[in-house]
Amino acid sequence: MEEVLNLTGCTGTVSQLNYSGSTQNISSRVYNAVGFVLVHAGAGYHSESKAKEYKHVCKRACQKAVDRLRAGAMALEAVTAALIELEDSPFTNAGTGSNLNLCGDIECDASIMDGKTLDYGAVGALTGIKNPILVARRLLNEAQKGKLSAGRIPPCVLVGIGAQQWALSHDIPPCPPEKMATKFSLSAYRRNKRKMEQAEKMDTMCNPSKRRRQSSGTVSEIMVGHGEHMSASLDTVGAIVVDQEGNVAAAVSSGGLAMKHPGRVGQAAHYGCGCWAENARDARPYSAAVSTSGCGEHLMRTMLARECSTAMQTEDAHQALLEAMQNQFIGSPFLASEDGVLGGVIVLRCCRCGEDQTSDNFQALLVEFLWSHTTESMCVGYMSTHDSKARTHISRLPPGAVAGQSLAIEGGVCRLGNKND
Amino acid sequence: MEEVLNLTGCTGTVSQLNYSGSTQNISSRVYNAVGFVLVHAGAGYHSESKAKEYKHVCKRACQKAVDRLRAGAMALEAVTAALIELEDSPFTNAGTGSNLNLCGDIECDASIMDGKTLDYGAVGALTGIKNPILVARRLLNEAQKGKLSAGRIPPCVLVGIGAQQWALSHDIPPCPPEKMATKFSLSAYRRNKRKMEQAEKMDTMCNPSKRRRQSSGTVSEIMVGHGEHMSASLDTVGAIVVDQEGNVAAAVSSGGLAMKHPGRVGQAAHYGCGCWAENARDARPYSAAVSTSGCGEHLMRTMLARECSTAMQTEDAHQALLEAMQNQFIGSPFLASEDGVLGGVIVLRCCRCGEDQTSDNFQALLVEFLWSHTTESMCVGYMSTHDSKARTHISRLPPGAVAGQSLAIEGGVCRLGNKND
Repeated sequence: MEEVLNLTGCTGTVSQLNYSGSTQNISSRVYNAVGFVLVHAGAGYHSESKAKEYKHVCKRACQKAVDRLRAGAMALEAVTAALIELEDSPFTNAGTGSNLNLCGDIECDASIMDGKTLDYGAVGALTGIKNPILVARRLLNEAQKGKLSAGRIPPCVLVGIGAQQWALSHDIPPCPPEKMATKFSLSAYRRNKRKMEQAEKMDTMCNPSKRRRQSSGTVSEIMVGHGEHMSASLDTVGAIVVDQEGNVAAAVSSGGLAMKHPGRVGQAAHYGCGCWAENARDARPYSAAVSTSGCGEHLMRTMLARECSTAMQTEDAHQALLEAMQNQFIGSPFLASEDGVLGGVIVLRCCRCGEDQTSDNFQALLVEFLWSHTTESMCVGYMSTHDSKARTHISRLPPGAVAGQSLAIEGGVCRLGNKND
Repeated sequence: MEEVLNLTGCTGTVSQLNYSGSTQNISSRVYNAVGFVLVHAGAGYHSESKAKEYKHVCKRACQKAVDRLRAGAMALEAVTAALIELEDSPFTNAGTGSNLNLCGDIECDASIMDGKTLDYGAVGALTGIKNPILVARRLLNEAQKGKLSAGRIPPCVLVGIGAQQWALSHDIPPCPPEKMATKFSLSAYRRNKRKMEQAEKMDTMCNPSKRRRQSSGTVSEIMVGHGEHMSASLDTVGAIVVDQEGNVAAAVSSGGLAMKHPGRVGQAAHYGCGCWAENARDARPYSAAVSTSGCGEHLMRTMLARECSTAMQTEDAHQALLEAMQNQFIGSPFLASEDGVLGGVIVLRCCRCGEDQTSDNFQALLVEFLWSHTTESMCVGYMSTHDSKARTHISRLPPGAVAGQSLAIEGGVCRLGNKND
């Protein structure tokens, strides 16, 4: 069911939250441990012809996370497992198959956050490491061990060569750059480079004094171009997880914008912007986890991950996310000069449910999960430990809706039964 | 006047806000343009013997900003002028004289934010550029010009070699690393390296399995050690400004922690963490600007700059900052595992005042300015366009207060008369 809202300055296209989700009320079997994972393979443009590949990698990522959850792993471990699968796919813009930068190199951003401890680790502009998320995760783990020698505070965010050196010194193996580039990413680079040169030539001819500026178009061709040619430019993958103890974790990984300047760091390496996870406590009735995707500069300047997590503390999750996307993203004063605001989020929140609050038994977890995007499309997958396989979906803006100015929002709810169900 | 509060889990030592500040009610002379600047030369430990130098650089930085404001420059330009002066001092840990990292290199972080446009620019782990703030400022300016060729979105944050290359290609000259290191920073590096080696040797002897962890002490010796030997480890300089139109701007620059891992990026290159500036609008009655200093990881994970700016929208600025420092910093759930929380902020907020709201004349600006820190000391300077010279001050925790667990808070208020006063 869909409805169209007229928002101030934009057309908001909203799909109602579907509370009859596939994973609802399936809690009649015995499981060792419960949990839920929601992943995304980027908000951008997903061509119909490649839809199968995107869905397939989401499915595999969900399965990896659920395998860990079933084995009793915590959210942080499960979310890492999902990310590795997403990074290893040559179809996603993260790890292997990442967009190439202006010089034809791969530089990756990634971060991870543990909702239980609120610990965080991130890497930016990292080269020559197959799974950037493993470096972010290791940074988080090392920081948990306490101070370094002579009381030095362990780093939380590392970038560039220093990040690579740190990874190697912590037994994360190097990966030759040529193994991370794919036939597809290389041909996209050559195509983008030609386009750029042509555009610059045109600009110089039309307006020699303003050579650096784009002369036409509201949405970047290289950024989120339509059709086959630009599908290499999809941005960022991510996952969010809740485990049997109700802990949440979130992670994100990105090759960044196609043809970005070397050293450019996007939201995936920025605290509060790429991912967020925070367990319930005191005045926060819900645990919430968020992972974002899209144009890094837009997601960064709106701190979208943290804003969406904060929004999740009000009663109606769907309404809260809709308002956050409208007011804190599309209508954000921080992006007032932008002609299109491009991004997407996956969000989950959960709380304990059940009448017997005093029981020693594991209480059921109620998980609400949502995704929303202002890009043409967003590919998501989700799975609970009660499911035999993951569900995947490519969410699209309705025909006629303008990317960057409209949004789609969808989701579901899932009750994870207790151990003795 | 001082009072001691007993806070949950920490001793809060608070100095009352002094509303009889030096710059109050001095608006009887004619000026071309009005404005106010507040700068800091780091929250850490400032030895008595070097106090004169720290105060002197703050004074010069204030003067530079006020010179620009008097000439009608906007806040963004004035704040940049102050930062250049602070970076150029060999006594501060920013630009020339920055702390050396683990490999003996200088890697700088800096960022700047314009409260009028909400634009932002940052550099991280930047080497070989004398004034990192100029690169951050240039990133902000270039982004304001709109998209790059072929619709590429201009970068907002650049790090490492890529940042340096970008600076050089935008006519910012290189600076040989040996010109940025000082006799003092080099000898501090050698001393710190010896300390580190000794500590590692001790740790290995005492507990071979936990070699990387610190075995003693609550506050890092290298980080914020007491006395002469460690004064090279002071962190971060910054400035906040309001101009004649009531626009605010904020900036921050840092050489980072002494002996940091190469590639480590601190709060000075992190959005929302190192500096924040936001003009009044709609539901925000006050313009507010913030710049932070201290342990980057602590300031980052609490997003202290943005939190303090948000807090400034309540009526009592002093109370709001006190609560923000107590609840969002010392008592932050994000730093629950830390044994000491080290940082400082300078904050200003302003609003128009005067009875004749409809007058065409320039309305007076009421500026409230504050500083607060949990470190041993913090060096600040401030000056309005009405003042003949800057005031400087080294704020210290009272005797007996524990750095990392207590705080000091001070400030003043200043009325900037209109053009026709």
